[in-house]
Amino acid sequence: MDSCRSDRPREVLVINVGDELLDGLRGNTHLVWLGEQLARRGLPVTRAVTVRDDSDAIAREVGSAWGAYDVIVTTGGIGPTSDDRTREAVSAALGVGLAHAPAAEAALRDRFTRIGRKVSDADLRQCRVPEGGCELPNPRGTAPGVWFSREGRALVMLPGPGLELRPMFDEEVVPRLRDLGCACRGEAYVQVRTYGIGAAPLERLIRPLVPASLTLTFGTHTGIVDARISSGRSGASADDLCDVARRVRDAVGEDFICTGHACLASIVIEQLRSLEKSVALAESCTGGLLADAFASVPGASRVFAGSAVCYSNDAKMNLLGVPEALIAQHGAVSAEAAAAMASGAADKFGSDYALSVTGFAGPEGGTDADPVGTVYLGYSSPTGVWSMRLSVVGDRAQVRRRAVNTALDWMRRKLNRYRVEDLIHGA
Amino acid sequence: MDSCRSDRPREVLVINVGDELLDGLRGNTHLVWLGEQLARRGLPVTRAVTVRDDSDAIAREVGSAWGAYDVIVTTGGIGPTSDDRTREAVSAALGVGLAHAPAAEAALRDRFTRIGRKVSDADLRQCRVPEGGCELPNPRGTAPGVWFSREGRALVMLPGPGLELRPMFDEEVVPRLRDLGCACRGEAYVQVRTYGIGAAPLERLIRPLVPASLTLTFGTHTGIVDARISSGRSGASADDLCDVARRVRDAVGEDFICTGHACLASIVIEQLRSLEKSVALAESCTGGLLADAFASVPGASRVFAGSAVCYSNDAKMNLLGVPEALIAQHGAVSAEAAAAMASGAADKFGSDYALSVTGFAGPEGGTDADPVGTVYLGYSSPTGVWSMRLSVVGDRAQVRRRAVNTALDWMRRKLNRYRVEDLIHGA
Repeated sequence: MDSCRSDRPREVLVINVGDELLDGLRGNTHLVWLGEQLARRGLPVTRAVTVRDDSDAIAREVGSAWGAYDVIVTTGGIGPTSDDRTREAVSAALGVGLAHAPAAEAALRDRFTRIGRKVSDADLRQCRVPEGGCELPNPRGTAPGVWFSREGRALVMLPGPGLELRPMFDEEVVPRLRDLGCACRGEAYVQVRTYGIGAAPLERLIRPLVPASLTLTFGTHTGIVDARISSGRSGASADDLCDVARRVRDAVGEDFICTGHACLASIVIEQLRSLEKSVALAESCTGGLLADAFASVPGASRVFAGSAVCYSNDAKMNLLGVPEALIAQHGAVSAEAAAAMASGAADKFGSDYALSVTGFAGPEGGTDADPVGTVYLGYSSPTGVWSMRLSVVGDRAQVRRRAVNTALDWMRRKLNRYRVEDLIHGA
Repeated sequence: MDSCRSDRPREVLVINVGDELLDGLRGNTHLVWLGEQLARRGLPVTRAVTVRDDSDAIAREVGSAWGAYDVIVTTGGIGPTSDDRTREAVSAALGVGLAHAPAAEAALRDRFTRIGRKVSDADLRQCRVPEGGCELPNPRGTAPGVWFSREGRALVMLPGPGLELRPMFDEEVVPRLRDLGCACRGEAYVQVRTYGIGAAPLERLIRPLVPASLTLTFGTHTGIVDARISSGRSGASADDLCDVARRVRDAVGEDFICTGHACLASIVIEQLRSLEKSVALAESCTGGLLADAFASVPGASRVFAGSAVCYSNDAKMNLLGVPEALIAQHGAVSAEAAAAMASGAADKFGSDYALSVTGFAGPEGGTDADPVGTVYLGYSSPTGVWSMRLSVVGDRAQVRRRAVNTALDWMRRKLNRYRVEDLIHGA
């Protein structure tokens, strides 16, 4: 069964512990990850609280929430140092003692023996769980997590490091939430990712296609607009959601990128792999950000040759062979320069395709005709070279990020059409 | 006066409103920014809550907090759409009505006239403030913020878009918090940024130098360790903090990067500008991330020539002139390849200095001698070429980020020594 039927919506609270989250030293990436994971399993987070590394604050939060929420997840503060107070504070709030967990100690001693480290009393503090709870193994670190459940409700304590938290949640917590009847077995939402259409027009376009019993929410990031179709309380199955997503996809047309969370670069890499073609880049204002989008995708090296990041005009001439006269006549930020950079990159890297970016990211630079925020993109393919102009409103970082996404989306569209033309010509 | 004396610590609550923050669609960047801004002004955030776009949830949060906190800041939900419910919910929780703000309407009409847009009833909903409060002008958007103060306590509503929230906080909120006696006039902390020393050894080293009346906290990000020295309740002045920071700096020695928040790339750019020298890059596994670190700094083009991102061996040979025989003998991930890449980059870009990175970022690749996580860095200067080996534990993203920071820090150290040598030779 893959349905997500539930008699009532579940209430979920995430409590993130850490001074650094409140002092602006670090963003709360755990909440982003857990929010997405829980929503996918039909357990959207109702509320999230961030508290300091303070026993009273943690205990107060858990004490007032236990009984009111179906699922409480805490992150951080279960390690061996004196700053780690979650284990003790939560037990106090639950009104139970901490019991020694022999299996956790055995695992910790085994791990320490392997890495040649001595086990201290502080380390052993981690091997305790609230009475009636159980430890969650942590093969990637020292602090085991905790699972505590009473009358259909659950409290979970996860370690602070992301590399330990994520697999522990996947491997240990999700199965237990399913057994408890909280998490659904299939996917509780389907996400349709688009580029080139704003959130408001997208909503007008697809709202009529989504049954009122389903939940439709939107998220935007640098030109990408995600429409998330969730089963909510409807009892819709994963298949039902996919049917709706298919209709949405057809309506969205060329602006449709994918269902799910794939980034634009991974879509382009997938297209190139299926065509068995390669790509190279030439970048000015994006300064390596476009290359990074490709290089961040594991296995990129099979189709991604590289990028010539040419900040100076000399570099554009020497590395990419952009003629000095072209820059003198049209400027380094021009449709002509973008086209020449793309051709040069394909030539120098020996790639089938090339993508180029040159623009004024600000805060300085720009001309009357091409003010800050103006970006030219170039595209070289086996059949020709194109360029396009883009105007971005925003600061330096926004102009650069938007230029990267628009370049990737442009290539995605071009390759899609190429595939269609190819099919027609091959027929 | 620049002291931060206060009879008691202030309690500060941040309430972030938005479904997208709980569904994992977006990180809470506002809390990072506000947390840092408030801490800097002696108002560290006590607790932060994220709630959905739901009137009851917002009202419940504000209702239970008003009276218990000195400062409450809300973000989001004050725009013109039906999803925007913060204004109404907060007023209900405060037990006051919403009054029309004529100045806000005049500003909105003026703005809309300039951009040629009609004012709708929904737009005018934004021009209301809780009775007894006042609007905060928003010249960068349509939704004015709100300031509401009673008996020395304040509640502030800020708009969701960061480009509106940040200047509104700086220009409108900080002066009002100062007038209320909440925010200090000087800086309430000094941050010492380091690289190359772990958080635990750094604490052992500098704890004895920091008076017990001051607060010392640590933050780490990809090898960077920040020690933040805050006045807390001590009444220490900004000058007092700077004195302590100077002693800490001396103790930290070469691992000291800067006081404040400057990134490693901006430090290197500053060093190069003072030397009137330029730098170029050659990247393999970091794939443009190192170039991006330089290009993200406004004004980088004065010293940053560019980067040859060479993923394929062919690119390393063709663009950087790395000899085929060198790659055949030592491999593309080797000290020799790193050195040749750095020399090649300096040569092709015509730069004074060059930095190179080649390594196995994973998940695939690596050898017995150089497993995934092994990275070689190369450095070319007018006086010679060096390489170094680095082992990083972590996933692909962590290996790449750590390689970037270590390369930048290496160059920073080299340039520091160069400057010292230069002074000695010049004497």
